[in-house]
Amino acid sequence: MTDKQKPLILVVNDDGYEAKGLKAMVEIAKTFGEVVVVVPDRVRSANGHAITMNEPLHVRQYLQEDGVAYWRTNGTPVDCVKLGQRVVLRNRHIDLVLSGINHGSNSSVSVLYSGTMGAAIEASFEYPAVGLSLLDYSPDADFTAAIHFGKRIVKSILENGLPAHTCLNVNFPNVSTEEIKGIKITRQTDGYWYEDMEERVDPYGRKYYWLTGYLVDTDQQPDTCEWALKHNYISVQPVHYDMTDYKHFNDIKYLEDVE
Amino acid sequence: MTDKQKPLILVVNDDGYEAKGLKAMVEIAKTFGEVVVVVPDRVRSANGHAITMNEPLHVRQYLQEDGVAYWRTNGTPVDCVKLGQRVVLRNRHIDLVLSGINHGSNSSVSVLYSGTMGAAIEASFEYPAVGLSLLDYSPDADFTAAIHFGKRIVKSILENGLPAHTCLNVNFPNVSTEEIKGIKITRQTDGYWYEDMEERVDPYGRKYYWLTGYLVDTDQQPDTCEWALKHNYISVQPVHYDMTDYKHFNDIKYLEDVE
Repeated sequence: MTDKQKPLILVVNDDGYEAKGLKAMVEIAKTFGEVVVVVPDRVRSANGHAITMNEPLHVRQYLQEDGVAYWRTNGTPVDCVKLGQRVVLRNRHIDLVLSGINHGSNSSVSVLYSGTMGAAIEASFEYPAVGLSLLDYSPDADFTAAIHFGKRIVKSILENGLPAHTCLNVNFPNVSTEEIKGIKITRQTDGYWYEDMEERVDPYGRKYYWLTGYLVDTDQQPDTCEWALKHNYISVQPVHYDMTDYKHFNDIKYLEDVE
Repeated sequence: MTDKQKPLILVVNDDGYEAKGLKAMVEIAKTFGEVVVVVPDRVRSANGHAITMNEPLHVRQYLQEDGVAYWRTNGTPVDCVKLGQRVVLRNRHIDLVLSGINHGSNSSVSVLYSGTMGAAIEASFEYPAVGLSLLDYSPDADFTAAIHFGKRIVKSILENGLPAHTCLNVNFPNVSTEEIKGIKITRQTDGYWYEDMEERVDPYGRKYYWLTGYLVDTDQQPDTCEWALKHNYISVQPVHYDMTDYKHFNDIKYLEDVE
């Protein structure tokens, strides 16, 4: 198979160019195709679907190693997708966009806050896209099991395809390869983050706050991402960008009578 | 009616404390209740659901006027909701969160990029919440019709309520009060932003890019937000934070066989 027949894979992330999870993702992607990396020049976690409109963007190649081209930008994870498509790859056809591997869970409602998933959702407007996340926030997290199963998941996706505009939110429990029980297709656990604002006082007597919090999980059903992860399954959740609440259409019909 | 019986309304936005749209929103909110404003200290449009985890947050009152308390923060629009709830209002019960009035449309897939809607979705985890946007990006946009109908919409919501965890994405066409034909409950138009990266060269010879683009609207149906707005209706879209793609669950079931 020549290089021209290999699938073109764009790798993005939200933890920035120095993240160990990026190395893990490149290891997965290199197995299957030509790989181009476009990532933020600093940590951009929890950037959600943010884009940069109020300042100019730059994007520069900083490394070429083992056939992989590495670019970094001052933009957000979603900007990485846009810059990758239009500037770095000049509208070449992309076969798959891989986002991550994120340091930390993107299960439940974290899909909204996640830069990893923001980038995957953005990519899904035009290309098959998958976000991968490991339930370990530490910079030196062990990605061994995520790489092992990540390769198998990506292989299957390249062979079987994804529905147009559906991206995947894949979360790996933080256990060894042997301890993983399998893969479950899940729905988003209902819940929300309750924030604790940790109050501190700066050396000049002014209060400031660190945003911390915990997930309020109001939904313990076995078809959810949280259930799967707690039981050592890999959670694979199909995600779509249509946020319309179809269930409650009729409950707000009264507003059509407002004059 | 005493102050204690008045509904408590938290006003947030993404255009920052100097925006004309904020004044318009306060004018609506003041009609109905006790109003507390918590907004960014600079323009934070297109911040999506981003939150601030990598630097500390501050929030300070900068104005008290006509019974309204105004606070500003270095945080994102979603941070404004969290700081408003936990720090400014110290977990008092909030009756309604109003986000905006945004300068510019948040119809179709812009719901993902919008800081206005990010804040409204965040608020909907605990409270009734509505984002209001006017289809005019200019700083001196004319909010007359938006205020006129905004008051009527907010009145109706306070009287009739919203389903739990459903927030509203309200978009006003940029026409006069008389030209508005009515209100339509709509679904999110299918489409995406195609980005033009406008390339420039800085004085030192380095390329940089401004993110611009246009909406590729693949969906012209009369039940969509775009259709309503093009025909001078106010679009009211129910929005929910569950991003699971239930339609395509079975199309990716093959992944459960990966070993």
